[in-house]
Amino acid sequence: MQEELEKQIADLKNQVENLAGKQAENKISMIVFSGDLDKALAAFIIGTGSVAMGLEVVMFFTFWGTPLLRDKNKQVGGKDFMGTMFGAMLPKGTGGAKLSKMNMACMGTAMMKSLMKKKNVASLEEMIQMAGELGVKIYVCEMSMDLMGFKREEMINYPDLTFCGVAKFLEEAMNSKIQLFI
Amino acid sequence: MQEELEKQIADLKNQVENLAGKQAENKISMIVFSGDLDKALAAFIIGTGSVAMGLEVVMFFTFWGTPLLRDKNKQVGGKDFMGTMFGAMLPKGTGGAKLSKMNMACMGTAMMKSLMKKKNVASLEEMIQMAGELGVKIYVCEMSMDLMGFKREEMINYPDLTFCGVAKFLEEAMNSKIQLFI
Amino acid sequence: MQEELEKQIADLKNQVENLAGKQAENKISMIVFSGDLDKALAAFIIGTGSVAMGLEVVMFFTFWGTPLLRDKNKQVGGKDFMGTMFGAMLPKGTGGAKLSKMNMACMGTAMMKSLMKKKNVASLEEMIQMAGELGVKIYVCEMSMDLMGFKREEMINYPDLTFCGVAKFLEEAMNSKIQLFI
Repeated sequence: MQEELEKQIADLKNQVENLAGKQAENKISMIVFSGDLDKALAAFIIGTGSVAMGLEVVMFFTFWGTPLLRDKNKQVGGKDFMGTMFGAMLPKGTGGAKLSKMNMACMGTAMMKSLMKKKNVASLEEMIQMAGELGVKIYVCEMSMDLMGFKREEMINYPDLTFCGVAKFLEEAMNSKIQLFI
Repeated sequence: MQEELEKQIADLKNQVENLAGKQAENKISMIVFSGDLDKALAAFIIGTGSVAMGLEVVMFFTFWGTPLLRDKNKQVGGKDFMGTMFGAMLPKGTGGAKLSKMNMACMGTAMMKSLMKKKNVASLEEMIQMAGELGVKIYVCEMSMDLMGFKREEMINYPDLTFCGVAKFLEEAMNSKIQLFI
Repeated sequence: MQEELEKQIADLKNQVENLAGKQAENKISMIVFSGDLDKALAAFIIGTGSVAMGLEVVMFFTFWGTPLLRDKNKQVGGKDFMGTMFGAMLPKGTGGAKLSKMNMACMGTAMMKSLMKKKNVASLEEMIQMAGELGVKIYVCEMSMDLMGFKREEMINYPDLTFCGVAKFLEEAMNSKIQLFI
């Protein structure tokens, strides 16, 4: 009888361990698809706010989000024709990002930026720096880099930046409590 | 030996309680970032549908989503220059919301509205009222209110509306089964 | 005493079973709201990538996402005036999908397509076929079909396609590890 109880307890232990291993971690994973100023701001406000809530933060930059991470002071050569064209057409860093609405030939964007300054809301550049200091992980989509002809040397210096594919991001997202597509 | 079993059972109890405490609640948390008519409709269709599925529903209105909750019949004074400008430029309530696509100088929006009426799909105003009756919680982003110069007195009367920051939303989102950025 | 231990173990078993039943499944649920070429591509890249990570995949096509699934070679008659108008105005299948940014009178879209070909990135048509072969489930929103006046006979042949309401999707989303609104 005693033996039977021991067996049942061992079974339960296994099941509990199994369940514990499947628990989502205290993590938030975001896909930053958009290159709009307002959406990028929202992503970083959520990101830095999540650190304050004790969450680990992973941001995967893909498609139009990728150019946000270009360093406007870095020049790279050796691009092919398409790469040069995309490079010229796409914004170079946060300075070129515009509002998704009410842009009105950039007037809305300028208004919003001046307003944010007045109301003491951090700018996108400041947000990215803060995120870096807080340990927010940035993943950059390799396929987007390749499609847009960006080179690794033209991206910003960021403490924790990794170039990877969607699989690596999904691995993080699967084990996260929150996932957002922005 | 009996004592040993008791200890093991007590251990398991702790672990199971611990796991139970980490379980996501039957809740859905949505960030309504967009002010587009179609996306707002989608958010409320998902919201009211979720109540029917036994989920608690939290909707966090931020950026362009915020003006959707202004009451077109409420007038407030005492705004500064920027606040007055934003107030005039941004839609006042659901009536000013437009489709994200095929708006075509508002023709598409008008078509969609008449079509929804014909097909017995509830309008956005009706959706919001229904959501209120079903107990959907609305959070309004304080930073957006401040940036756009909105005052609390100009927002709609809604049964369960709270002004708060992103941290309060993240707290709900962390414990939710579903999170969406709309 | 022995009896007491047995009772405690039985209690624990119930709790553990209960917890196991509440665990999210290895599944990702996406709402494809957008009909933009880039967002649809992102959705299918995430979808097919998720299969490779061992996840079950459910994609719910609603609003502007719905026309992506029309078959350009199928003709249907018997539509009312609004249905005929919407049918003509909305893209018919993936060929009509455009970039959300940099479309520039379709030049950007054409550039992106030729670039994808050159870089060996699968086209949207190929992605959909691959998704079908990999067992990605497609749900089509009945309300959107009805609003846009689409008929079931004009949709693509896809191995696992179901017409349903938002409730059916929420049921899947509730039990998924990842949910995205695209």
